[in-house]
Amino acid sequence: MKGESLITREKREIEARGDEDKSIDPANLEMFEVARRAGIETVFDRLERQEPKCPYCYTGVSCRNCVMGPCRITAKADRGVCGATADVMVARGLLRNTLGGTASHVDHARHVALTLLHAARGEAPYPIRDEAKLRSLGRALGIEGAESMPLRELAERVALLALEEIGATHANGGRWLRMHATQERLETWSRLGVLPEGGMLPVLEGMHRTSMGNDADPVNLILGCIKAGIADGFYGLHLSTDLQDVLFGTPRPKFSSAGMGVLEAEYVNIACHGHVPILSEKIVEAAEALQEEARKAGAKGIRVVGICCTGNEILERQGIPAVGNELNSELVVATGALDAMVVDYQCIFPSLAQIAGCFHTKLITTAPIVKIPGAEHIEFEERRADEVAKEIVRLAIESYRQRDPGKIHIPKFKTEVVAGFSVEALLEVLSKINPSDPLAPLVDSIAAGDIKGAVAIVGCNNPRVPHDLMHVELAKELVKRDILVLATGCAAHGHAKAGLMKPSGYRLAGERLQRVLKALGEAAGLEALPPVLHFGSCVDNSRINQLLKALAEKLNVAIKDLPVAASAPELTTEKAISIGTWAVALGVTTHVNPLPRIMGSELVTELLTQKAEELLGAKFIHSPDPRESADMLEEVILEKRRKLGLAA
Amino acid sequence: MKGESLITREKREIEARGDEDKSIDPANLEMFEVARRAGIETVFDRLERQEPKCPYCYTGVSCRNCVMGPCRITAKADRGVCGATADVMVARGLLRNTLGGTASHVDHARHVALTLLHAARGEAPYPIRDEAKLRSLGRALGIEGAESMPLRELAERVALLALEEIGATHANGGRWLRMHATQERLETWSRLGVLPEGGMLPVLEGMHRTSMGNDADPVNLILGCIKAGIADGFYGLHLSTDLQDVLFGTPRPKFSSAGMGVLEAEYVNIACHGHVPILSEKIVEAAEALQEEARKAGAKGIRVVGICCTGNEILERQGIPAVGNELNSELVVATGALDAMVVDYQCIFPSLAQIAGCFHTKLITTAPIVKIPGAEHIEFEERRADEVAKEIVRLAIESYRQRDPGKIHIPKFKTEVVAGFSVEALLEVLSKINPSDPLAPLVDSIAAGDIKGAVAIVGCNNPRVPHDLMHVELAKELVKRDILVLATGCAAHGHAKAGLMKPSGYRLAGERLQRVLKALGEAAGLEALPPVLHFGSCVDNSRINQLLKALAEKLNVAIKDLPVAASAPELTTEKAISIGTWAVALGVTTHVNPLPRIMGSELVTELLTQKAEELLGAKFIHSPDPRESADMLEEVILEKRRKLGLAA
Repeated sequence: MKGESLITREKREIEARGDEDKSIDPANLEMFEVARRAGIETVFDRLERQEPKCPYCYTGVSCRNCVMGPCRITAKADRGVCGATADVMVARGLLRNTLGGTASHVDHARHVALTLLHAARGEAPYPIRDEAKLRSLGRALGIEGAESMPLRELAERVALLALEEIGATHANGGRWLRMHATQERLETWSRLGVLPEGGMLPVLEGMHRTSMGNDADPVNLILGCIKAGIADGFYGLHLSTDLQDVLFGTPRPKFSSAGMGVLEAEYVNIACHGHVPILSEKIVEAAEALQEEARKAGAKGIRVVGICCTGNEILERQGIPAVGNELNSELVVATGALDAMVVDYQCIFPSLAQIAGCFHTKLITTAPIVKIPGAEHIEFEERRADEVAKEIVRLAIESYRQRDPGKIHIPKFKTEVVAGFSVEALLEVLSKINPSDPLAPLVDSIAAGDIKGAVAIVGCNNPRVPHDLMHVELAKELVKRDILVLATGCAAHGHAKAGLMKPSGYRLAGERLQRVLKALGEAAGLEALPPVLHFGSCVDNSRINQLLKALAEKLNVAIKDLPVAASAPELTTEKAISIGTWAVALGVTTHVNPLPRIMGSELVTELLTQKAEELLGAKFIHSPDPRESADMLEEVILEKRRKLGLAA
Repeated sequence: MKGESLITREKREIEARGDEDKSIDPANLEMFEVARRAGIETVFDRLERQEPKCPYCYTGVSCRNCVMGPCRITAKADRGVCGATADVMVARGLLRNTLGGTASHVDHARHVALTLLHAARGEAPYPIRDEAKLRSLGRALGIEGAESMPLRELAERVALLALEEIGATHANGGRWLRMHATQERLETWSRLGVLPEGGMLPVLEGMHRTSMGNDADPVNLILGCIKAGIADGFYGLHLSTDLQDVLFGTPRPKFSSAGMGVLEAEYVNIACHGHVPILSEKIVEAAEALQEEARKAGAKGIRVVGICCTGNEILERQGIPAVGNELNSELVVATGALDAMVVDYQCIFPSLAQIAGCFHTKLITTAPIVKIPGAEHIEFEERRADEVAKEIVRLAIESYRQRDPGKIHIPKFKTEVVAGFSVEALLEVLSKINPSDPLAPLVDSIAAGDIKGAVAIVGCNNPRVPHDLMHVELAKELVKRDILVLATGCAAHGHAKAGLMKPSGYRLAGERLQRVLKALGEAAGLEALPPVLHFGSCVDNSRINQLLKALAEKLNVAIKDLPVAASAPELTTEKAISIGTWAVALGVTTHVNPLPRIMGSELVTELLTQKAEELLGAKFIHSPDPRESADMLEEVILEKRRKLGLAA
């Protein structure tokens, strides 16, 4: 069957791997041996034990959406019991995966909107840190008097509007969507019938249509994926970023460091892991407030470090060091130097409890929907944010006293990183070159070919791919070709650790791009801009759309015509699937690797990798090789340049 | 591995089946041969080809919720790549299945609420048929002036409130829940943290928590199932029934007929299949209006018949004959006498398009989220309901002209049925015996043991179980033991076809129950009440809760203490899983067969079949045998009777 040879090859490759093939992060390479000696099982070990993968689930031709099954497409069965074909099973499965992603981000956005609401009403201890952003949001949402209204009143109005749109039960305006999408896209999506009515409804509708006896048209189901992707982008990503900026401030460039070496044995080390700054910002504050208690406990103080996206959030706003990404998370615990790992939600391996159990480390879950047997659960309520954060930090201090110094092993690797490239920050830099028309220098560089184009490298780690290899090698290939890279999520951690996000990293870029980075860097007061710009967390992929929209409107072209592309080269989560779908819906051709479970349907594969171009002006592309991926992405960019009449 | 022996046994049994083992419906038995001669593949054939089933998906120990997998629990792998255990995979899978059900019903309710809103605003051609129900709803929802407000204004208020609660993004009242749940349950659910905030949010939250790296606590995940089940019950089932009664009238007992023999060769035959009366009620009206056109085309007239739940909806309100349930649906097309099958959503086998393609029959899809390659799609918009319904009926008349008389084969079997037992209707009957205290005669009969208890037999057909066998044999066993049966959904079709829903069917009951049925029947102007009362469609399971709540409040006990139980003995859909979960959450012990995919986790199995009793006063029970199932259900009832101090 289709996919079987892929599965066999993957099994062979994975089983043949030595440690050195599993990661390019020197800290991980060092920790593999430490973990092995301690008898700790990691995600890399579990991956091997899952070989060989089931060919039906691998290619998507299985279904368990009703109790007549489970069903699968085999040589003797070309349909499931209900009559669903391979195409339907694959499309249905992909839609449910997309919904898992959309639901995660919309629920995140809902959480932030509720926090803003409570903050506005004085019911939660969060100040409004970015008045300018709030007022500008208010204006863009068409709230009358947004300029002059008392701040808290405006915050309440904006929060209520956000919640109303998340909860919309029918088409009723969609102001968040209209605020951030271009007119051209709104028309395209309307024509395709994929305009989401709100944040939750596409999830409800998607779960409904994928249940037994509903949608049996693979094309219609894929349109459902696109609708869910669009809902994710505007009611998940954008809404989260907008309101997080209001609450915690819009990021500005700042120096920090990245890599496992940011841990220091003499400090109480607290790692924040997950995705929302609502908790982690408070942990940072509480840690600052309780430094003295830590010193009394014998430590030099408290060090908060970040993992995964919540790590990106506190890095871009507070300059908190980034200890690692998803595939570092277990091995960070295995350093034995972590006194507490505090998690909110998403991408928290359940195995962390096992590993923390081998050390003094407290794994602390905080969200009602994320509990892990073996972890300590301290429910985080925003209304009691300060108390809960202090309770958690004190638990870490307490835990510090239980340390076993003999178990501590901290790899020394760390790198300088500049993070915090919001669009607002970028425009501030650009306006130093052209105060009256800040986008002009960027446009000119693109037109001249000094910046050939831009690629967003985003998304997860996936142990099926050598950890960080694709992120880093792909970025190096691209910047060498004068293609600017914007990065978020676990990808950004990878780039940071590899030195692609420090000013001196500009030397990795091609000559023409180097000149631009130098010029812009000088304007920003830096040696140079890094060739890979840290755009934040996964929800901050919204910032990339914000930039694309500004460029498209400035040039009076559609986003689909800009010389840009995207890549999730170590894709793991359902969220990456929904974000990738959003990107394609925006008109940005998106490279993914590994492939989601679509191989079992030629129709679906063709729809996503070819026909999507006709409908949306963008499609999915795939390659497991960084060089080949760079070639493909460069070709997308060159093609757009040709169509715009720009020199290649 | 666990489950392997079950799978082997099931394979052996399914492969050994002759036609006579596949269904107890004589019409199906006759049609099997007809279909075979015509080379038509049915759900029964496809079931065989799916043997043997995959043991991982069968027992629930597989996961494809991220792209690190697919994963499964095997001898060498006790965890997925992320670290998820068998317990987590099973609980996560069950939650996603439950969400599929909840989403279906909440989306259905949303659809009805929108129709009511448009009707109220004069934007859709639907009158308010049940003023009394609307006013009583308005009062129960706490709408001031509900007694005297202009009807349309009240309808708008109720519709808006319904939509608001469906779309709630945080706990904010939950008036629909509070209107229909007992105080005791609200307190129990609040204690367990499973009070749903609205209709869509538990689906969003559930998809979020089952995505990779979130909830890894199987108990917490099962609480998520319970929350989703409760959301289904109140924001799906109750909301749908309430507003459908307002729009189309609260059912009252009426005579009709059931079975494939309701088709007549000389008529234009239109089958309505799916779940919402919004479309099927209009088809019934349009058919009536266009009888003359049908006669001009050479037919005697137009006959509308119902399949599945939309069939139950137009049966209970309009007395439209019921041609069959889910496992009749394909073979009804194979009669060659159907000119059109009009479907809305849910339980529509994709295979229907293939089978319709062998005949002149038009398969007409109408919902934007249900398209089937090969079917004709005529989008049904409520605002244009009358035109669209007429267009569909005219297409059926046109199709009638294309009939091939040589292909027509209609089995003659049909049975009398009385349907339409809403709680309101039942109370009207009871009030003829005791006008001042209508529930008293029922309570007295239960107390005396003339009615030993009641069992709701509900849910789907599943070809893994001989079609209708469990529904019918279980019901016969129960009524013989003086246990009253209430039925809905495909179960009710089974009972109707088997003669358990006609007045003379009372003779199948035990002697003591017979006397009650005679007495009540006489009060209702019938020979007797049938021993199995047709309570409507699957969303009308709400009516069963309505009755239980009234009884519990009358007796001042909790529902969990009433001598009642439930069974979904031919369970197929995710909706049946969410409804069953709701039933257990209400305190009603529920028999299911076949088992959902929980066998791979002892912890989850124990939680649902044992520990649930401690938390909720009810649990799931399972048996594949009708006699044994009846024994188990009777034992539940006897136990409750003992606890209430009533004679067994």
